[in-house]
Amino acid sequence: MLSIDFSHIFDVGSHGMTKKQFAAYKKQLKPALKSFQLRAQGFHTIVDDMATAREIMQYAKEVEGQFDDVVVFGIGGSSLGTLCLRDALTHLYGKREKKQPRLHVIDNIDPVMMQELGDVIALKKTLCIVISKSGTTPETMSQYFYYRQQFEKEKLDIKKHMVFITDAERGVLREVAWEEGIRTFHIPHNVGGRFSVLSPVGLLPAALIGIDIVKLLGGAKEMRDTFLSSAFTKNFPFQLAVTQHYLDTKREKHLNVMMPYAQKLYRFADWYRQLLAESIGKKKNRKGKTVYTGITPVNALGVTDQHSQSQLYNEGPNDKLIMFIAVSQLAKQIRIPHLHPKKEAVAYMKGTSFNELIDIERQATAMACTKNKRPNLTITIPKVDEEHLGQLFLLFEGATAFLGELYGIDAFNQPGVELSKTITKEMLQKK
Amino acid sequence: MLSIDFSHIFDVGSHGMTKKQFAAYKKQLKPALKSFQLRAQGFHTIVDDMATAREIMQYAKEVEGQFDDVVVFGIGGSSLGTLCLRDALTHLYGKREKKQPRLHVIDNIDPVMMQELGDVIALKKTLCIVISKSGTTPETMSQYFYYRQQFEKEKLDIKKHMVFITDAERGVLREVAWEEGIRTFHIPHNVGGRFSVLSPVGLLPAALIGIDIVKLLGGAKEMRDTFLSSAFTKNFPFQLAVTQHYLDTKREKHLNVMMPYAQKLYRFADWYRQLLAESIGKKKNRKGKTVYTGITPVNALGVTDQHSQSQLYNEGPNDKLIMFIAVSQLAKQIRIPHLHPKKEAVAYMKGTSFNELIDIERQATAMACTKNKRPNLTITIPKVDEEHLGQLFLLFEGATAFLGELYGIDAFNQPGVELSKTITKEMLQKK
Repeated sequence: MLSIDFSHIFDVGSHGMTKKQFAAYKKQLKPALKSFQLRAQGFHTIVDDMATAREIMQYAKEVEGQFDDVVVFGIGGSSLGTLCLRDALTHLYGKREKKQPRLHVIDNIDPVMMQELGDVIALKKTLCIVISKSGTTPETMSQYFYYRQQFEKEKLDIKKHMVFITDAERGVLREVAWEEGIRTFHIPHNVGGRFSVLSPVGLLPAALIGIDIVKLLGGAKEMRDTFLSSAFTKNFPFQLAVTQHYLDTKREKHLNVMMPYAQKLYRFADWYRQLLAESIGKKKNRKGKTVYTGITPVNALGVTDQHSQSQLYNEGPNDKLIMFIAVSQLAKQIRIPHLHPKKEAVAYMKGTSFNELIDIERQATAMACTKNKRPNLTITIPKVDEEHLGQLFLLFEGATAFLGELYGIDAFNQPGVELSKTITKEMLQKK
Repeated sequence: MLSIDFSHIFDVGSHGMTKKQFAAYKKQLKPALKSFQLRAQGFHTIVDDMATAREIMQYAKEVEGQFDDVVVFGIGGSSLGTLCLRDALTHLYGKREKKQPRLHVIDNIDPVMMQELGDVIALKKTLCIVISKSGTTPETMSQYFYYRQQFEKEKLDIKKHMVFITDAERGVLREVAWEEGIRTFHIPHNVGGRFSVLSPVGLLPAALIGIDIVKLLGGAKEMRDTFLSSAFTKNFPFQLAVTQHYLDTKREKHLNVMMPYAQKLYRFADWYRQLLAESIGKKKNRKGKTVYTGITPVNALGVTDQHSQSQLYNEGPNDKLIMFIAVSQLAKQIRIPHLHPKKEAVAYMKGTSFNELIDIERQATAMACTKNKRPNLTITIPKVDEEHLGQLFLLFEGATAFLGELYGIDAFNQPGVELSKTITKEMLQKK
């Protein structure tokens, strides 16, 4: 199980919180759990759905070796989790076993992207996964239209080359699938887009590129049990939410920086951006009162962004909670040879390894922030693997659900995106 | 020349500014220019250095066809501009002419990254560019040590396989280059890392992958002339800085979101993150007074992040200035075929193209923000090409220099990163 070090929340004086203030939230845990259960959300129950996992693995086995490229058409909650899974659990530079396809996630409608994707894939060796819960998302539907026509032009069988992931009962994709017998996987109706990474949305693409989805769900289950625990000291998601909530509402830390010290976790911070932004950025609370809540997520990467963002984090406005993610065993030790032994300026690097250097720099960065009274916490996982990624997903999904309860808002809707959708439709119709 | 539409700064009531407030800054332009000139910075003069550009092109010609992979070791200001140039001006999925090498930018010391890079490159066909202005950056020096030893183990000629970009007079890399005759390009002493993209730092890797650096400098020159103009209506960088400064200091817009509507400009926003964060995030002003200035940069991507961040931008705290970047001619028109004509839910998409859809969604997003009184501006370029990227670099570098003057801080130092560097050294020495 991952661990969380909250000590630098407690030792930054009036910019953090005291252990007493932290513990005072204890009495809110049971009511929050009870209130959350009333929302009837499914993100924490889908981790038990082994029947779907088996169905996905069966399909992956069926199509093994048939495709050179898998292309996901999806946006937001239909793409960010998949990008995270791919980048965290496969080779950084695309090296793969021969039978495994490449995975492209096309989460934009830039015509340049559509054109250049076409330059590198061969349709007859390509599988397209079309993901839209509503089955009406204009970006995804336009990509589906375009690629369906491309397949038809080459007289390729749509039923072989396309799979839909959508609602079980409604929407255009659902109807087309019924009419034509296209293979479909479902997004449960009680699982919102940004909470859907452990549904077929993330699991199907993951299984197709060799990720062990059973281990992923296993790790998620461990954290789910923690999330549902009414024991404050065991409930990591609640402890995290408490920290974010207190620092935002009492200490003006309106920004949450997520800074993993692992190249492969860069996209995890990107996945979390949507989860936090869409869930907590709300004009009205549940009573209809105008509140304009919201924590702005900022993604950073260690050590890289020490050379880009640390100056601001240490000397700029003290308006951030920084969440470091540490990985205790990144890879086997790679020694740094000590060349030019007479050059004094680099003598201090003698006898170290990349593993040690990245870890020491992370600690030094946290210590500097602490000395500058910038509240920070560190989540440590032993490895970037399926099990611990599953834990991380549920840790932050659970914390986000609790944040909704602590703010008294609906963490599961997104009314603020409707206006631009309506304007888009009107502009298209006016033409 | 690019254009900037400030209208949605002026029409969002008390969350923006009036045209009168905007124009009132006019009298600060000449003093700001004068004060800036005293800083003796070189980012706006290097664009005239055609001798260096020619030297770089000559070198690129010399080594043409010799390398399959070019690896840049550099971090922060030594990597972000190069990543931006590569991603903006080459194929999204890596398709390239046969003689052109792939370009990897290794801006982290994660041992997994070092290991997996080794899986995909062949040393005898690899050129390493080691970039560190000081010649002592521990991350870059450790990568240099490691790869130098790899080359030596394979008995490959260091002088053929390594190039340094560093200060002309000092530092370990400079000394080694003198001692051994290693090819070196210089970072002028008056150009800081985050302002160095148009020095050899960005130009050399760019030239090696076929980017037209003369056009890049040409575009930059156009904007440089604008930047030095004492006519308020002509000076785009000053107008931009004025907007950022007023909204931060008078309207509590402490965050600047940069949201390009072009997949290839994603890394431009990443480059800008360092520029804004390190330049303006300062504890002390020039008089030594504690001020804790700083605007937190946030990068987003249109249309992708409409499905991730728009909810927060429209309904969360009104604490952001949103800067859209529009591209008027992204690519040739790609029509979206209208399949399933009987499905009412997608009927509104009939007769459109990807080009039109992305543009309409951008406009709709800006209109929704405006309706919700969220100040926003739009920078429009006709194309993502060398010329307009050059303009964009100088626009934001110039605006950042002016921000330094408006806040009365030193935009060109980074004292806040020293503490963690010192702690790192101490921890390494203690071992």
